[in-house]
Amino acid sequence: MQPAALESLINALRVLPGVGPKSAARMAYHLLQRDRRGAETLAGALGHALTHLHHCRLCNNFSEAEVCEVCASTRRDRRQLAVVEMPADFNMMEATQSYNGLYFVLMGRLSPLDGIGPREIHLDRLINRALDGTVEEVILATNFTPEGEATAHTIGELLKARGLKVSRLARGVPVGGELEYVDSGTLAQAVRDRRAL
Amino acid sequence: MQPAALESLINALRVLPGVGPKSAARMAYHLLQRDRRGAETLAGALGHALTHLHHCRLCNNFSEAEVCEVCASTRRDRRQLAVVEMPADFNMMEATQSYNGLYFVLMGRLSPLDGIGPREIHLDRLINRALDGTVEEVILATNFTPEGEATAHTIGELLKARGLKVSRLARGVPVGGELEYVDSGTLAQAVRDRRAL
Repeated sequence: MQPAALESLINALRVLPGVGPKSAARMAYHLLQRDRRGAETLAGALGHALTHLHHCRLCNNFSEAEVCEVCASTRRDRRQLAVVEMPADFNMMEATQSYNGLYFVLMGRLSPLDGIGPREIHLDRLINRALDGTVEEVILATNFTPEGEATAHTIGELLKARGLKVSRLARGVPVGGELEYVDSGTLAQAVRDRRAL
Repeated sequence: MQPAALESLINALRVLPGVGPKSAARMAYHLLQRDRRGAETLAGALGHALTHLHHCRLCNNFSEAEVCEVCASTRRDRRQLAVVEMPADFNMMEATQSYNGLYFVLMGRLSPLDGIGPREIHLDRLINRALDGTVEEVILATNFTPEGEATAHTIGELLKARGLKVSRLARGVPVGGELEYVDSGTLAQAVRDRRAL
């Protein structure tokens, strides 16, 4: 009983992650009823992004140019390569202002159950990139989730076998964390990786 | 440090209700990385819906034709008019298969704090529609939320002043509901509106 154009829009909105039939309907009503200009902008931005966004040839992050700004920068330390899962992680790393090397963005993490294997996260490209002769250390900055850990382990083994220095972000109690409220796994890691003062 | 096309897409996605900056970024990555065809379909569906979907001249629901299927149907009882807030509510009413009259879809509810007044929910059109000479009863089927109740009250007063019969959906214990777990407001209503057997 719904018009076909509305039905199609609701179905199309369901491609968004975390959006089920009810949210999709709510979004469609909102766009059509209260924010038609926003809907036009969204349609345009989607088309524009699909046409203009590619992956940086070096770091695999989204980029409009063949090589992204970070990889093209001359102020970066080209001997360090941080491996992150997603562009959002890249942004977080940049926000810390404590890392001045280059990146490789996997655009995912190993997750066989979701059909995401070594191919989908471009491990072959990462290995070629890491073996360019300039990179000396690869810093594994994937998440500390089971998938992120498995991804870090796999990449670490592959790169160590090729003679590269590989490191992993430190695990431990977060800044401002109180021992009473930190989960025991984190605390156990913090004890094991304790630093000499 | 993000490419402009990506930045624009993330901002554009934030027009969707309930989508903040982090979800918008996650959606953009997902579309660009894992579902480019879905993104194309979405852009197309948005454009198509914006061009082809209008409001039914009679019931105000979304429609591709000037008068929607329900309003145009000859099998409907034109003496009853149910007033609902959103197309989703219209769909729910239809799903009950217990109502064969016509509808008026407000496309919202009175909510002065959100800037939604009588004009935004088309009260003038509703009154003209209800006074077409054929409608005998207006059934207020807005939600039982504070805004929905206020909307029903306002519409009810306006229509009763013009001599129309006005009714409201019954309040009470839901089917399968156990008194122990029903909130006291609902139970109080169920006692007050008790039916003679």
